[in-house]
Amino acid sequence: MKRLALLCALALAPALHADEGMWTYDNFPSKKVQQKYGFSPDAQWLSEAQLSSVRLAGGCSGSFVSPEGLVMTNHHCAHSCIEQLSTKEKDFVAAGFYAPAPENEVKCPEIELNQLVQIGDVTARVQGATKGLKPGKEFNDKRKAAMAAIEKECAAGNDKLRCDVVELYHGGQYSLYRYKRFQDVRLVFAPEFAIAFFGGDPDNFNFPRYDLDVSFIRAYEDGKPAKTEHYFKWSPQGAKEGELTFVSGHPGGTDRELTMAELQYQRDIALPERLFNLAQYRGALTMFTQSSPEHYRIAEAELFGVENSFKALKGRYESLIAPTLWNQKAEREKRLRARVQTRSGLRGRYASAWDDVAKAMATYQPRRKEYQYIEQGAGFGSSLYRIAKDLVRGTEELQKPNEERLREYTDGRLPQLKQRLFSKAPIYEDLETFRLSYNLTKLRENLGADHPFVKKVLGKKSPQDLAQELVKSKLYDPKVREQLWQGGREAVQASADPMIQLARAVDADARPLRRWHDEEIEPLQTSGSERISAAKFDLEGKSNYPDATFTLRLSYGAVKGYDENGHHVDPVTNFAGGFERATGRDPFRLPDSWLRANQNGQVDVKTPFNFCSTNDIIGGNSGSPVFNKELQIVGLVFDGNIQSLGGDYGFDETVNRTVAVHSSALIEALDHIYGAKRIVSELKGGPGGHASGAGSK
Amino acid sequence: MKRLALLCALALAPALHADEGMWTYDNFPSKKVQQKYGFSPDAQWLSEAQLSSVRLAGGCSGSFVSPEGLVMTNHHCAHSCIEQLSTKEKDFVAAGFYAPAPENEVKCPEIELNQLVQIGDVTARVQGATKGLKPGKEFNDKRKAAMAAIEKECAAGNDKLRCDVVELYHGGQYSLYRYKRFQDVRLVFAPEFAIAFFGGDPDNFNFPRYDLDVSFIRAYEDGKPAKTEHYFKWSPQGAKEGELTFVSGHPGGTDRELTMAELQYQRDIALPERLFNLAQYRGALTMFTQSSPEHYRIAEAELFGVENSFKALKGRYESLIAPTLWNQKAEREKRLRARVQTRSGLRGRYASAWDDVAKAMATYQPRRKEYQYIEQGAGFGSSLYRIAKDLVRGTEELQKPNEERLREYTDGRLPQLKQRLFSKAPIYEDLETFRLSYNLTKLRENLGADHPFVKKVLGKKSPQDLAQELVKSKLYDPKVREQLWQGGREAVQASADPMIQLARAVDADARPLRRWHDEEIEPLQTSGSERISAAKFDLEGKSNYPDATFTLRLSYGAVKGYDENGHHVDPVTNFAGGFERATGRDPFRLPDSWLRANQNGQVDVKTPFNFCSTNDIIGGNSGSPVFNKELQIVGLVFDGNIQSLGGDYGFDETVNRTVAVHSSALIEALDHIYGAKRIVSELKGGPGGHASGAGSK
Repeated sequence: MKRLALLCALALAPALHADEGMWTYDNFPSKKVQQKYGFSPDAQWLSEAQLSSVRLAGGCSGSFVSPEGLVMTNHHCAHSCIEQLSTKEKDFVAAGFYAPAPENEVKCPEIELNQLVQIGDVTARVQGATKGLKPGKEFNDKRKAAMAAIEKECAAGNDKLRCDVVELYHGGQYSLYRYKRFQDVRLVFAPEFAIAFFGGDPDNFNFPRYDLDVSFIRAYEDGKPAKTEHYFKWSPQGAKEGELTFVSGHPGGTDRELTMAELQYQRDIALPERLFNLAQYRGALTMFTQSSPEHYRIAEAELFGVENSFKALKGRYESLIAPTLWNQKAEREKRLRARVQTRSGLRGRYASAWDDVAKAMATYQPRRKEYQYIEQGAGFGSSLYRIAKDLVRGTEELQKPNEERLREYTDGRLPQLKQRLFSKAPIYEDLETFRLSYNLTKLRENLGADHPFVKKVLGKKSPQDLAQELVKSKLYDPKVREQLWQGGREAVQASADPMIQLARAVDADARPLRRWHDEEIEPLQTSGSERISAAKFDLEGKSNYPDATFTLRLSYGAVKGYDENGHHVDPVTNFAGGFERATGRDPFRLPDSWLRANQNGQVDVKTPFNFCSTNDIIGGNSGSPVFNKELQIVGLVFDGNIQSLGGDYGFDETVNRTVAVHSSALIEALDHIYGAKRIVSELKGGPGGHASGAGSK
Repeated sequence: MKRLALLCALALAPALHADEGMWTYDNFPSKKVQQKYGFSPDAQWLSEAQLSSVRLAGGCSGSFVSPEGLVMTNHHCAHSCIEQLSTKEKDFVAAGFYAPAPENEVKCPEIELNQLVQIGDVTARVQGATKGLKPGKEFNDKRKAAMAAIEKECAAGNDKLRCDVVELYHGGQYSLYRYKRFQDVRLVFAPEFAIAFFGGDPDNFNFPRYDLDVSFIRAYEDGKPAKTEHYFKWSPQGAKEGELTFVSGHPGGTDRELTMAELQYQRDIALPERLFNLAQYRGALTMFTQSSPEHYRIAEAELFGVENSFKALKGRYESLIAPTLWNQKAEREKRLRARVQTRSGLRGRYASAWDDVAKAMATYQPRRKEYQYIEQGAGFGSSLYRIAKDLVRGTEELQKPNEERLREYTDGRLPQLKQRLFSKAPIYEDLETFRLSYNLTKLRENLGADHPFVKKVLGKKSPQDLAQELVKSKLYDPKVREQLWQGGREAVQASADPMIQLARAVDADARPLRRWHDEEIEPLQTSGSERISAAKFDLEGKSNYPDATFTLRLSYGAVKGYDENGHHVDPVTNFAGGFERATGRDPFRLPDSWLRANQNGQVDVKTPFNFCSTNDIIGGNSGSPVFNKELQIVGLVFDGNIQSLGGDYGFDETVNRTVAVHSSALIEALDHIYGAKRIVSELKGGPGGHASGAGSK
């Protein structure tokens, strides 16, 4: 009843009281925050928050927390790096990592950091490129050429800049995001996995929680810690119930503005199929990790990712089959279309837009599996294949002018591509064999044993046979990859490496599929979405925030509990709760460091541990700072509660919650469990890490 | 276009030309068959077909094919038996099995055969028991008591009879099916798994096919081959294109008459959840089978079942998300409800029925996982748990009068229960450990680590810890089980066996859930369904067949190809096609016996192998005979094509096909590949097996 009453209130005064929204920095609703919380962020405040925020290009968020380039993010955001730096003999995932002195900080092979320094509007130029064109090849060519040109001009050949044309409001607006790029990023501190992910999959997306999901990494420039004049300071108290909190980060993607045709595709096809695939892979991968301690070590990060995705997508699926949300969305679309129909000025321009999107979905559907398994490489999922594909396609694409290349091989994308391609991260033959056997089997299952492509790839071999041949590739060695890349198209075409040969064979079938997708599906969907967005602007103005696009957003909210199954969930947990929950068995096993510190009375068990707030976030926000109006860190986002999983489609302030590590827990653990005095001092602005207060505005 | 035209024709003359229908023997539409195929089965013909058909109580169909109790069914129907008779040293699944002489036939530990000897109508008595009662406890008690009493009277204490009250038309009709029961069933012949399931999961539910999915078993009475005077003879030619074919068998279940509320529950919740679970289990089980040859041997039958279910249910799911079928069903329900509303004689009796069913679904949904994981035992899936549950519950239920027991422990059900309970089939500790660890983990995942039941069961143990304890149970030994059963409630309550202790602990929580389901959900759904069925009878008469219920049905059709992706699929394959398709690698590896016979020119490669026909079947029909109007075997059902997977919800004659082994392939292989002269002679009615023609009518 309570919830119903609230929904009615919302209907009368839309969004006025709700903490909903992942706002772009150039359209932040300071007035709304002022009305509800009595604080209005000004331009300088916003600029400082923006410049203190950082993106992990692989898919996470973080923040500068010292003027010496120190970055705070989640353990699970640096998990791959920690695993890549580990060996069979020295497992930093299990044991944790701490660099007691600056010279002990170790380079992460594949982390790129992006600091957003400027936002520009390029809508007119991008939309202008396709003006008057029917969706199709020319539409696609012109649009992509325009974006590539804008990005290239912006970066001006400087690899330390990264420029991305960002499609907002599903094409209603195009912004140019200019980032400072850091590719020398080093690991400073990570706790043991057992406490970073205490409770494991069973507790994932739940609250109350007891996790220290943190890691510290550092941005370097020219071999030295980067000088970062903009950074978040540390709050002396940390988050308190009822306190206004901001989250600045990079939500990966939401689908709140999709059409009903797109939502139906997600509900009936895309989400179930992904879940079927993830579920089976999860079952197989779990068994792989259990087959030996070394297999656990090399595959456990991947298993975390699979389980996390499965749970998140299942929550999304469940929100889509709930009739209330579905009917609300259907009603909203119906009303919008009716309004467009009744206004002659809009009808001609927009009325067909929804049907165009629906047509794009209907056209895509029957060939979606070929697109996924052949072009997107689902049938060959492995590190070696990804590398081979980039070598084959990349060297081919580089023959063309920047504007004519596939988006992922334009000049603006090359630095990140090369970082991955030449990465020293180990690739394990056992895991590659497992993944290739598995995915080749799924390729045959999904396209059918009689599909010409399957016959071409497998011939009379079994998936296991072929996997065994492919893992004999020499692409494990970054030097081999670098030679092939330097040798260019000719060298790659001449290579007898089995994985390169496979990637070449696949490319011949994959390119027509890519063209089909890029020329027949995408332009139709884009053109439809752009017009729907324009119709919304015409009728509703730009009072709304755009769907998330893994670009920097600011959300506001407050530390606040919620009601669940008839009882109230308090918003803050403490260390004592974690010690109580421990069973001694994974995933409820506390690491020895914690048990020892507790036995010795080194830690204050009343220290706040995790908390939840009403900030509107989604996957990609992991590692985002939670800060107060003084721009001080009060927490570190690492999760959402189970109710927040429907956040892809909408936000319900009564129960959707961000879940964060409390800033006091971070200090208490660093100081009294890990003895990481150097970091504590740096965070507190003391003399250990850097000159006190230097660089702060 | 072709299909559309046909649909229009069907709309004008419903069901007149379609081979749709799984007809009960007491309501077979002989006139329809006469109109389309010029042959009208009479009462004697129907009686002979009925008495020559046989049910494998575990979930398959078969037929008597000699007067000496010889039964033909699929390899996959006897797969468990073949595996149970195998050992690490002698693997009959891999190598095949042939008893060259009667004394070499070996008893299957868990196969029960049922021959339907009589059908009676008990609708008035069952429906009368609940007349005037509101859905609830009394409704449930009275209804189940009536059914238990009818069954007990019918069998009259004779364990060689099995009497089942069968709910047809979703409660619109109750029939009493009286079977002759055979529990001494012996294995006679099975080919190698490699040819029985040639093409494996990739080819499963596909056509063209090349499988010899057959096994022969024999019913015994008093230690001797049963005298079966009714049996199918062998056709000299076998199935030919265009020929009229009948299939008599036991389709497991269809959902063609469900309400939209039930269908929506299936589409959005039941099917996706089962598929998520099956997919993950498939992934894990596949890895288990790959971890050693012995693990493969002991778990491969289970893996087949899981993969088969996954593919079948995925096909069902895909048919439900197709808008055409959905909209047709919605429209049909809307029209029916409108007709009920507008007739005052019907409105009062039936109008609320659909809402009652919807309410039952809505009430069930929030607690469905508790019901599944606790009461239905999904959280403990293993052979040992099933045994322990039957011992705990069975001995408890036996304290009560027959009419008051849970259905599965009524007197009529005890012979089958005891056969399973005291079965000598081996139970493997490795597989039990794997399954228990897996399912206990899923229990925690699905109910949540904080659910009181999960805490009660796991305490501070991990699922793996608990599984390790439970597999120390002594229930592997059938003698231990028999002692406990004989000792009754007292002995079971006193047992210190860890699995018995678990089952007792679970039972305390499971019984209230069972009561909730049986008193609040089922009666509401039953009462609603009964009334919907009555409304259909009132408005449409009984011209329709009831949804399948794993009881004997007869379907008619013809050997016929179909069009797929623009090309025509011929209805009959031959041996040569199988040799061509072979790659030498599983699952496309032909057994040595076949390769050798081919090299030596022993087989005629032009022999018809598999064929497809328009008969309307579904899972449970596996092993059904395909016969002609002379009651001669022309084939053996083992599958449906991929298009038939939507058969749960409807039948589309243009593409739905039954897939069968051709009778000529059976004789050719038995004779020239396996040298099984004894069986060939028996099938042909020769002197090898029995006196020529003896017992035939």
